[in-house]
Amino acid sequence: METSTPALMTDHYELTMISAALKDGTASRSCVFEVFSRRLPTGRRYGVVAGTGRLIELLKDFRFDPAEVGYLRSAGIVDETTAAWLTSYRFTGDVEGYPEGELFFPGSPILTVSGTFAECVVLETLILSVLNHDSAIAAAAARMVTAARGRPIIEMGSRRTHEHAAVAAARAAYLAGFASTSNLAAGRAYGIPTTGTSAHAFTLLHDDEPTAFASQVAALGKNTTLLVDTYDISQGIRNAIAVAGPDLRAVRIDSGDLSVLAQHSRELLDSLGATETKIIVSGDMDEYSIATLAAEPVDMYGAGTAVVTGSGAPTAGLVYKLVEVDGRPVVKRSENKATVGGRKIAVRRHKPTGTAIEEIIYSQGVPDHQANDRMLQQSFITGGEVQPMPSLVESREHLRQCLISIPWEGLKLSSGDPAIPVVIVPTA
Amino acid sequence: METSTPALMTDHYELTMISAALKDGTASRSCVFEVFSRRLPTGRRYGVVAGTGRLIELLKDFRFDPAEVGYLRSAGIVDETTAAWLTSYRFTGDVEGYPEGELFFPGSPILTVSGTFAECVVLETLILSVLNHDSAIAAAAARMVTAARGRPIIEMGSRRTHEHAAVAAARAAYLAGFASTSNLAAGRAYGIPTTGTSAHAFTLLHDDEPTAFASQVAALGKNTTLLVDTYDISQGIRNAIAVAGPDLRAVRIDSGDLSVLAQHSRELLDSLGATETKIIVSGDMDEYSIATLAAEPVDMYGAGTAVVTGSGAPTAGLVYKLVEVDGRPVVKRSENKATVGGRKIAVRRHKPTGTAIEEIIYSQGVPDHQANDRMLQQSFITGGEVQPMPSLVESREHLRQCLISIPWEGLKLSSGDPAIPVVIVPTA
Repeated sequence: METSTPALMTDHYELTMISAALKDGTASRSCVFEVFSRRLPTGRRYGVVAGTGRLIELLKDFRFDPAEVGYLRSAGIVDETTAAWLTSYRFTGDVEGYPEGELFFPGSPILTVSGTFAECVVLETLILSVLNHDSAIAAAAARMVTAARGRPIIEMGSRRTHEHAAVAAARAAYLAGFASTSNLAAGRAYGIPTTGTSAHAFTLLHDDEPTAFASQVAALGKNTTLLVDTYDISQGIRNAIAVAGPDLRAVRIDSGDLSVLAQHSRELLDSLGATETKIIVSGDMDEYSIATLAAEPVDMYGAGTAVVTGSGAPTAGLVYKLVEVDGRPVVKRSENKATVGGRKIAVRRHKPTGTAIEEIIYSQGVPDHQANDRMLQQSFITGGEVQPMPSLVESREHLRQCLISIPWEGLKLSSGDPAIPVVIVPTA
Repeated sequence: METSTPALMTDHYELTMISAALKDGTASRSCVFEVFSRRLPTGRRYGVVAGTGRLIELLKDFRFDPAEVGYLRSAGIVDETTAAWLTSYRFTGDVEGYPEGELFFPGSPILTVSGTFAECVVLETLILSVLNHDSAIAAAAARMVTAARGRPIIEMGSRRTHEHAAVAAARAAYLAGFASTSNLAAGRAYGIPTTGTSAHAFTLLHDDEPTAFASQVAALGKNTTLLVDTYDISQGIRNAIAVAGPDLRAVRIDSGDLSVLAQHSRELLDSLGATETKIIVSGDMDEYSIATLAAEPVDMYGAGTAVVTGSGAPTAGLVYKLVEVDGRPVVKRSENKATVGGRKIAVRRHKPTGTAIEEIIYSQGVPDHQANDRMLQQSFITGGEVQPMPSLVESREHLRQCLISIPWEGLKLSSGDPAIPVVIVPTA
């Protein structure tokens, strides 16, 4: 593994800023940083908060061990004072934000970090890495889940992304409603159901397809999925049912015109008496190809490349900005108008029916609470102490409820505006 | 960290295939797997092999520890026989391939893994995760380096990708010719020069810009980079030179119309006597925006999002395919014609001037070696023993030489065909 703690997953400039701020006394100024996105990926109608639970676990381990500080000293990156500060580093501030599975829109303050300048600024890179990656995957995955209309989707993209990112991607996809993952590390770390049976290599390994199928059924039983497209698909299905009988759980098709092949395979399976045998399709599945198959007799999808790379939006565009110093709002001049200084309070307003109308972001004000308003922020860390966090399953259910609550246009796959407007209410 | 060894960074189906193959005796068949891409990302003219050094290190640690095997047993993923096999797993086969920094084209056999079916198939996901990620980053980074025409580029995209992927991305970008990275973990793990000075937050933290600049110069000296676009850029530059004097090393501009701002900043710096002060630009830099700035007085670029997400191609499209079983070539029926069975030998043919003409891939034949041919494959692991690997700096130089060797059209940023054709020579 590249590093022993998450503390060096940090940009060099955070430590030079701390060095200078320790020297001039500003390191201890009381600061508020906020994580938000200036815009959603082009055409996307909502973002999905993901990674917070994973982030809070990493923050527990955010310490600079002696070897790491030694590297920073010997590379001339920090001076002796900063090295001593890093050695005793413990985050003692507060972190609050939107829970995982919550939706976000441009300007939503999805994470607020408060404490001294130095203790907050050093967390910038790790916070953004986790949230930008996981939120990008979850947003893409949520669109696929919508497109699948209740049919299960298996996440099988590990091989298309960094080996550690793959584990986080499986988690984010499950959060977004995927049924299972192929990734064993994600299964172990997060309790996500894992699934998988065989690849083309298994068929090619054997002398012929019936032999390969017989071997798989002997080892795994009839409650398995046979991959039928290594040679001829029709013959593959015939071989599968001949070997396993009509009680075979499923066949998988990984190539070709899946629309035509799904219909043909269903007819053939039915004609062979395998009316309960499921059809799983995989191979370059994204939200659009899933939607295209809505009317076809497909029982389950396998999604890989598109989900782990965010289906065209591989990062969520989240930034970590200083918004308050010693109680004074601060803002960079060149920001767009949506950016205002000061700690924000966020509320989602709903119709009495439960449909979301707008997100209201109060800058330094107490919100005018209404009956159908929902406060969006929760405490994750208070005075350095980690608070109880929702489970992954709870976050998954939270997202499901959130997606039900937005206006129906918000679930369209086509490009459009954010599902609900964001209203910034500046300081009175 | 999610997992203690890389062994669970594996897809479920690899273990079910092993279970079945152990049961029917095919697990010990002698197999050859190859890693190749069927096509390059749309319009790209070459791929860059990256990640091999990182992969070989991970393969050294590819063991299933007792807790991992315990998880697999308790989750019902493997049976007792397979659990025992995993517990004693050691890769005893051979791995050869293109060295890091080598170019590849559709069909290039960049990694060849031989051994028993079971010992090779279990490595599939990890091999592809590492090579697909790192090669995607390196290819994007190499295009940026070409576009920068000798001006240095700093990799600063950690915050836009998964926290571990960020470390690998910094490594891949450095391999491709980037000058440095902001990522401290990459600096420590791979000896890559790290760099960074300050963010807008540092200026906002202070009571005014001159105070912030004075603090930074007091801590880091005049050989630093002042970020001048927090408020008004012209005033920022005046403040920077007023505080640091005309010997200031550099200013950085992170927003706005960088073309106009670079010209204006150069004129202003020169008028203030700071003729040696460098101009660094950052903010949504990709190969195209870098190329656009070629004629402007820019001294250095900072690239973030685009490089760590592969600039539109976040994964390299590499696959891991069984091509030979007990000496017999195998191939899936539905593959395109470029895919042929059997272990391949790859040669790049050059003109006497050194310009590459074509890549020749021999299937099961001994190549007809010519004077200007270069054999592309090297041994990385022989009989389970890791061989000496090139250093990252050597791989970086290798890529530089490879890019010099391809026809000049191959370096164009515009969409086009692969820089050289790939000729598959099947078995005689």
